[in-house]
Amino acid sequence: MWVTGSVAQADTLFDNVQGITLDEEGRVERFVAVLVGNDGTIEQVYRRGEDLPRDVDYHEDGRGRVMMPGLFDAHVHVMGIGFGALTLDLSQTRSLEEAQAAIAAYVAENPDRPWILGRGWNQELWGLGRFPTAAELDAVVPDRPVWLERVDGHAAWANSKALEIAGITADSVAPTGGRIERLADGKTPSGVFVDAAMELVQQAVMPPRPVDRDLALVEAQKILAAQGIVAVADMGTTIEDWQSFRRAGDAGSLYVRIVSYAAGIDNMVLIGGPGPSPWLYQDRLKLAGVKLYLDGALGSRGAWLKEPYSDAPGQAGLPLLTPAQLRNLMSRAALSKFQIAVHAIGDAANADVLNAIDDLDDTYEGDRRWRIEHAQIVDPADLARFGALDVITSMQPLHQTSDMFMAEARLGPDRLDGAYAWKSILEGRAVLAFGSDAPVEPADAFAGLAVAMSRQNANGQPFGGWRSGEALNFEQALAGFTTGAAYAAFAEDRLGRIAPGLRADFLFVDRDPTMASPSQLRDTRVLETWIGGRKVYDASAAN
Amino acid sequence: MWVTGSVAQADTLFDNVQGITLDEEGRVERFVAVLVGNDGTIEQVYRRGEDLPRDVDYHEDGRGRVMMPGLFDAHVHVMGIGFGALTLDLSQTRSLEEAQAAIAAYVAENPDRPWILGRGWNQELWGLGRFPTAAELDAVVPDRPVWLERVDGHAAWANSKALEIAGITADSVAPTGGRIERLADGKTPSGVFVDAAMELVQQAVMPPRPVDRDLALVEAQKILAAQGIVAVADMGTTIEDWQSFRRAGDAGSLYVRIVSYAAGIDNMVLIGGPGPSPWLYQDRLKLAGVKLYLDGALGSRGAWLKEPYSDAPGQAGLPLLTPAQLRNLMSRAALSKFQIAVHAIGDAANADVLNAIDDLDDTYEGDRRWRIEHAQIVDPADLARFGALDVITSMQPLHQTSDMFMAEARLGPDRLDGAYAWKSILEGRAVLAFGSDAPVEPADAFAGLAVAMSRQNANGQPFGGWRSGEALNFEQALAGFTTGAAYAAFAEDRLGRIAPGLRADFLFVDRDPTMASPSQLRDTRVLETWIGGRKVYDASAAN
Repeated sequence: MWVTGSVAQADTLFDNVQGITLDEEGRVERFVAVLVGNDGTIEQVYRRGEDLPRDVDYHEDGRGRVMMPGLFDAHVHVMGIGFGALTLDLSQTRSLEEAQAAIAAYVAENPDRPWILGRGWNQELWGLGRFPTAAELDAVVPDRPVWLERVDGHAAWANSKALEIAGITADSVAPTGGRIERLADGKTPSGVFVDAAMELVQQAVMPPRPVDRDLALVEAQKILAAQGIVAVADMGTTIEDWQSFRRAGDAGSLYVRIVSYAAGIDNMVLIGGPGPSPWLYQDRLKLAGVKLYLDGALGSRGAWLKEPYSDAPGQAGLPLLTPAQLRNLMSRAALSKFQIAVHAIGDAANADVLNAIDDLDDTYEGDRRWRIEHAQIVDPADLARFGALDVITSMQPLHQTSDMFMAEARLGPDRLDGAYAWKSILEGRAVLAFGSDAPVEPADAFAGLAVAMSRQNANGQPFGGWRSGEALNFEQALAGFTTGAAYAAFAEDRLGRIAPGLRADFLFVDRDPTMASPSQLRDTRVLETWIGGRKVYDASAAN
Repeated sequence: MWVTGSVAQADTLFDNVQGITLDEEGRVERFVAVLVGNDGTIEQVYRRGEDLPRDVDYHEDGRGRVMMPGLFDAHVHVMGIGFGALTLDLSQTRSLEEAQAAIAAYVAENPDRPWILGRGWNQELWGLGRFPTAAELDAVVPDRPVWLERVDGHAAWANSKALEIAGITADSVAPTGGRIERLADGKTPSGVFVDAAMELVQQAVMPPRPVDRDLALVEAQKILAAQGIVAVADMGTTIEDWQSFRRAGDAGSLYVRIVSYAAGIDNMVLIGGPGPSPWLYQDRLKLAGVKLYLDGALGSRGAWLKEPYSDAPGQAGLPLLTPAQLRNLMSRAALSKFQIAVHAIGDAANADVLNAIDDLDDTYEGDRRWRIEHAQIVDPADLARFGALDVITSMQPLHQTSDMFMAEARLGPDRLDGAYAWKSILEGRAVLAFGSDAPVEPADAFAGLAVAMSRQNANGQPFGGWRSGEALNFEQALAGFTTGAAYAAFAEDRLGRIAPGLRADFLFVDRDPTMASPSQLRDTRVLETWIGGRKVYDASAAN
């Protein structure tokens, strides 16, 4: 064990902790103290009974609290989290009337905003049985444009003022990969736009100013750190997002670690140029690769299925790219050694990405770590291919409990064997990376751990867990949010565990997660979050 | 005098030098040794007779050579320099036939290039009396598109294949601020496009790949360092340029210091966001502000004059922005505290920028350092306004000798009193910053110094100097390429002189410039270039 005595090196000893981490084999390991160097890296971890160093510069008494690795959320939209915090949040509304009241209140509180922007509505939760309409928005906001994204980000709802500004009429045509919802007359746009059609209105919305973007990043980091999330994969980084990340890095105010996957090839080339960026700002930022979309979401029936939806027999969702387009884009990225993460939700989409990886894997040698994002609905016949092709499967436990009843409606009872099937994926020997998809779901990794183990929502429903054969044990679930997510981002040599040589990213929490039931795990409170040996969140100081 | 003995600090003593620099009052100061800290900053400068430190870590024997400050070129196009080095250079051709031969040779040497790109032609030097034509290019390259920029970058010449790919026909119309040259029939495009009309063909040219951009930056830095240029103001940085600069900075391969002025407001917002960037990479990169264009160039008669051109009575050039547009753009930038540099060549353009600065100066308080780039043709009535309004005047000595005969033709004998009038500008107490406008002119600051002092070209023409009342003395000329250029970029606290606390950017040269005649100064050889205490060019090692 090496303990420095040099003046240039200032060490901090964290002792008197009940430490847990995963070891390199994925087993829980316990320790009582950690020595952290001045550069934010762990120098040594001490088990019970080992001698602690005496000659250290600083000392932090853990006061017997539980220390665990900082969590890595493998799928978020960082700026979306921040903007979500700055805009109208409808995710807690339980009826159209509640939503209308929340919108009216927000409009009254924000008299200077030229556009009323928000997100989080879900007509399924409202029990509406249909999408809402522009007229229902006009009733509360007739004079300013309103544009509200659905909870999954795959549809949005406009009022008449927004339609007018965007020039939407009965003659407007949806672009490929999109749909304009129409009223009963089959012509008049209803106010809801699905997938690619969202752009028809989005292009008219005033873009956020850089100062708003920077503020959103501040908010996003606060939210993540308070949840014990120390690192994220940002899925769909635009050049504007990246510039905000860099400004924060340059100013020393970037503390949550962000591994970026550029929003499409153009952003990839603009951000990364000839290849992925190096790790920047002491492992706080890196462009790793590109995010591609092959289909939409289940809620809006944009997910691409092998057979039609059970509750909409004429529709099977939309592939957003032809097989040739997908392979061309993947090749373009792989040629320059960018990592590739493809959004695939429906079983047809998952099968096609697997086929594409199979087609390309021989051509692009080396450690590629192809990623499939979501992999929600997989044909059971395809489950073993994830492991066979070494595909990193990036899944979001909370989607399972949010979507389970809707998924049953969309797919019927006979197509669920490969739905949210993380245990099967893991048994197929694929690496599993867990995330939240925040702001689509809350960036709540402890809730994610609980769902991964229980397949039950916050109310303990359904009893016994939904298709509980796919539940994981604690080590497997924690690996998804730590070592698996780090591996998925080529970061296993620096993040994901509490071990010498890795970054000092850890949490103090109010209970021992190895002893907790899933519902206790969900209630875990993060007391402190440390990133790179620096405290970035303290619950006792938070207001 | 502080000399460190700590291990963390490694000092280098440069002794046995014949050192010269400017002092804070602009006078030549001499010294014999410099102590440079490990961080690349000058710790101490020693005059003859002062005790030198003994306890230093490294030692560089100057061997009696002349040491002078590294030069700061206040107006270049960094990527243009690099791409210029990678593409066909016609600047040395002295006739259309010579140019055609050079083009044919380049095409033969580059069989794989889909587009033949080049620059540097000047029909004035060719004695052609007119622009060249597409047919004259077709004669040597019929099968691949060719696109060649004029020396001033304000016009370009295409062959028929390029016109075909770009979809140019007799019906094509020039956008505002541009002109399509036509053949004698008044209809058929001749192949030359002026100012904004260049975009009609440019949009069809395959953009360079990121790897080409990065290679161009490598080339540009080599060219600059070999000329003794340690810092530049990059006039018109695009987001793609900026990303190349950052990639080099992130990789530790950016050594020439670049102060960026974004290419227009959109790039400014995308690069800088809410305001100028901090100094990055130990003062090697900063976004300071925005570059705006108010007019074109004299050669292509794009410069905006108060009265028509003497050699084209119907034309007075083109303002590229209305007075209201110019002020709106300047306000947008000034609101976010970006520095503003406006390209103005004709007397009408210069007068309008001065008026705009006068209009805005009270609104935008603080140290703004408004810049006018070029200020080539100024109404004598406006000369004193540069100093009165504290306008930094960014001029390029080599333009005077390149343009002098053309300027006489364009303006006639009675409008030259305010032409390239750097002495008058200086006497009006404006800060003068000198540059090359490379690649429009070679990045040769010693030639620039010689012209600034002599108003003569490399052949010593005209005898006695062109309008020699505007010649400067050595200190004034050197200030333009050191302290003036640094001040113009808000860098006087870190760059421009050899003095404690400033960056260790200096040259060894083969003669004492304070003793040299202008023609001897022009012939100065740079032996070594040091930036931040690190040797980045060594003539004895260069091939």
